[in-house]
Amino acid sequence: MKLHFDCNATTAASMEVVEAMLPWLSRPGANPSATHPAGREAARAVQRARDQVAALIGARRAADIVFTSCGSESTATAFHAARHRADAAGRPQRAVISAAEHSATKKAAAARFGDAVTTVPVDAGGALDRDALSAELAAGDVAIVSVILLNNETGVISDLDGLGEECRAAGALLYVDAVQAPAKMSIDVERIGCDLLGLSGHKFHGPRGVGVLHVSGDTDLPALIVGGPQEGERRAGTENVPGIVGFGVAAERAAERATCAQARAEISARRDRLESLILDGCPGSSINGDTTRRAPNTTNIGFDLGGTGLDATALLALLHDQGIEVSAGSACNSSRMAPSAVLLAMGRSEARAASALRLSLAHQGTPDATSMADAERCAAAVIEAHAQVQALIR
Amino acid sequence: MKLHFDCNATTAASMEVVEAMLPWLSRPGANPSATHPAGREAARAVQRARDQVAALIGARRAADIVFTSCGSESTATAFHAARHRADAAGRPQRAVISAAEHSATKKAAAARFGDAVTTVPVDAGGALDRDALSAELAAGDVAIVSVILLNNETGVISDLDGLGEECRAAGALLYVDAVQAPAKMSIDVERIGCDLLGLSGHKFHGPRGVGVLHVSGDTDLPALIVGGPQEGERRAGTENVPGIVGFGVAAERAAERATCAQARAEISARRDRLESLILDGCPGSSINGDTTRRAPNTTNIGFDLGGTGLDATALLALLHDQGIEVSAGSACNSSRMAPSAVLLAMGRSEARAASALRLSLAHQGTPDATSMADAERCAAAVIEAHAQVQALIR
Repeated sequence: MKLHFDCNATTAASMEVVEAMLPWLSRPGANPSATHPAGREAARAVQRARDQVAALIGARRAADIVFTSCGSESTATAFHAARHRADAAGRPQRAVISAAEHSATKKAAAARFGDAVTTVPVDAGGALDRDALSAELAAGDVAIVSVILLNNETGVISDLDGLGEECRAAGALLYVDAVQAPAKMSIDVERIGCDLLGLSGHKFHGPRGVGVLHVSGDTDLPALIVGGPQEGERRAGTENVPGIVGFGVAAERAAERATCAQARAEISARRDRLESLILDGCPGSSINGDTTRRAPNTTNIGFDLGGTGLDATALLALLHDQGIEVSAGSACNSSRMAPSAVLLAMGRSEARAASALRLSLAHQGTPDATSMADAERCAAAVIEAHAQVQALIR
Repeated sequence: MKLHFDCNATTAASMEVVEAMLPWLSRPGANPSATHPAGREAARAVQRARDQVAALIGARRAADIVFTSCGSESTATAFHAARHRADAAGRPQRAVISAAEHSATKKAAAARFGDAVTTVPVDAGGALDRDALSAELAAGDVAIVSVILLNNETGVISDLDGLGEECRAAGALLYVDAVQAPAKMSIDVERIGCDLLGLSGHKFHGPRGVGVLHVSGDTDLPALIVGGPQEGERRAGTENVPGIVGFGVAAERAAERATCAQARAEISARRDRLESLILDGCPGSSINGDTTRRAPNTTNIGFDLGGTGLDATALLALLHDQGIEVSAGSACNSSRMAPSAVLLAMGRSEARAASALRLSLAHQGTPDATSMADAERCAAAVIEAHAQVQALIR
């Protein structure tokens, strides 16, 4: 049997999500732009999902929820908006991102701002350096600040409260990449005060191919995908009604999981057990990331592979042979094995960063749910793989 | 029971499509970028769909198929690529589109080329004026030509054979909006010779939220949605594996339907019956569009509502009350009732264009399949609605 410890890369849609999607997959006439009854029924289903997503992130207006096709599209749209704003400014403008951003953010920033991208450091624990960010904003030439709320590799949560107000005062847009956050923490767009916030369905047992961009009411958003009048002219294309309906159901469940003490205790107990077994069983291993502000499902562990000349790919190969699915860092980068930029930014050495495994668990009641026995089996496999690699140099 | 005569707006996913998607909706670990076995299995499923789509459109290389989230995204990406090319040209460049384009194309062109968009006429039958297009290309300042292969409102098919070569010789990209074409005609990207061609799954009983952009091997395509290395760095974002798998199955079936004489005869017989009953029963009605080069499932009929001061919205309301779902023109424009720009471009008067209904049928063996009895019931309802509107002025 396979064990899935790569749930930050993707999760399986839960049964209730699939059940909610099913009737919409093959329902005739369900184009929300059509004025006939089947079209209007589809429009109502989309509206209900918008309400569910607004509730998940504490948004005041459901109309501020724009459905996109994925987190990358939400991010690309944010930087598209920032580019428009910068072009209108009539003087050079920069993008400011944190050193712990997902590669999609780094690439979107580079695509729209070229060399005019400034990276703000994170500390050794992976938390955003708010003082350094404030100093950049003080220069007055920042079009957009983009920061990740819950890091995909380490699970570390950055404190973003009030950052929107600070950015607004400096004339900058604030985009928050909250793709990893649902179900793992409570999200409050009002407390952050961000202009834009991105989500992706498949990261929290919702469907693939559906994302969200929350656009605060007073933020001008030129569409990246222009065309029809869908989504308030902020995102064209016939609505993915089954996907949107599934996203709504997943959002409702994620909101419950984030606030449920038992759900949090269950998943963190499994993660903690996995983590402590590995730390005990692998001499020289240690956690990457501040454990006091961290998602309950994620651990990122660096290993001592000194002298073997090997990196985490060796561990991965041995684990995959045993049916245990794990990643080294972000799945989006996993086919090109380079040391994690996030871990390097946190001050890890190249060798230490290259040795790291990311282990991410799924909540109970989902298709990829992690049991305590799974956690223990995974830990045993990691310990054995580590010992095998170590044996190469003995 | 509701009858669906708006199948050019959207179709229901067929049962075999849904069945193919189902296991992928809730399969753990199915991120094609992940190196573990579940990830690799997902990557193989995506590859199979790529092969199926390549076969549908006669593409030589499956690697030229890029999965997007919808037809609008494919179109927006084509114009994004053209804008890059134009910016690199170092002198003013235009976009050239036909007068029969979908609103998504018109908006994408305007978003990227502003006022530098030239519209080439169509004839009274709706076919592209190739001579006028050649004259525009001769000016040597065209970055992109964008033409619709099968018109969404009239079903008229434009002859695009060899157009790619002509565009290439003039230094222009050719984008073909083939969103309405699958299952209704054979598509051959090699014969057209286009650089770029767009498709959308939900138009031919595939899933919502999945599109395709065919990018011929030698065409440089800067990603619109930048981020991860997915889709050969031409479209970032975790692959929508269930949607892509469903798209592949729908593509296979569409290819069969397009070449199957019986499938074509069945659907055109129902369309022809519907059409002839309406023409006979509604004095002053007539077909919009050349019937010699037309999709087998579509008819666009103009009515004589002279003197009532009413337009097709009155007919629509009466038909919807009877459970018959029809549109006036494109669904993307249906909430804002203006006379169809396509029909105006074909030389219809404002009143005539505003009177038109688009009736589009679905193939047998699909959830929204149109039977002969359905066609007859729809025709009777249209005739009755027309008579009711006419009675207002008697």
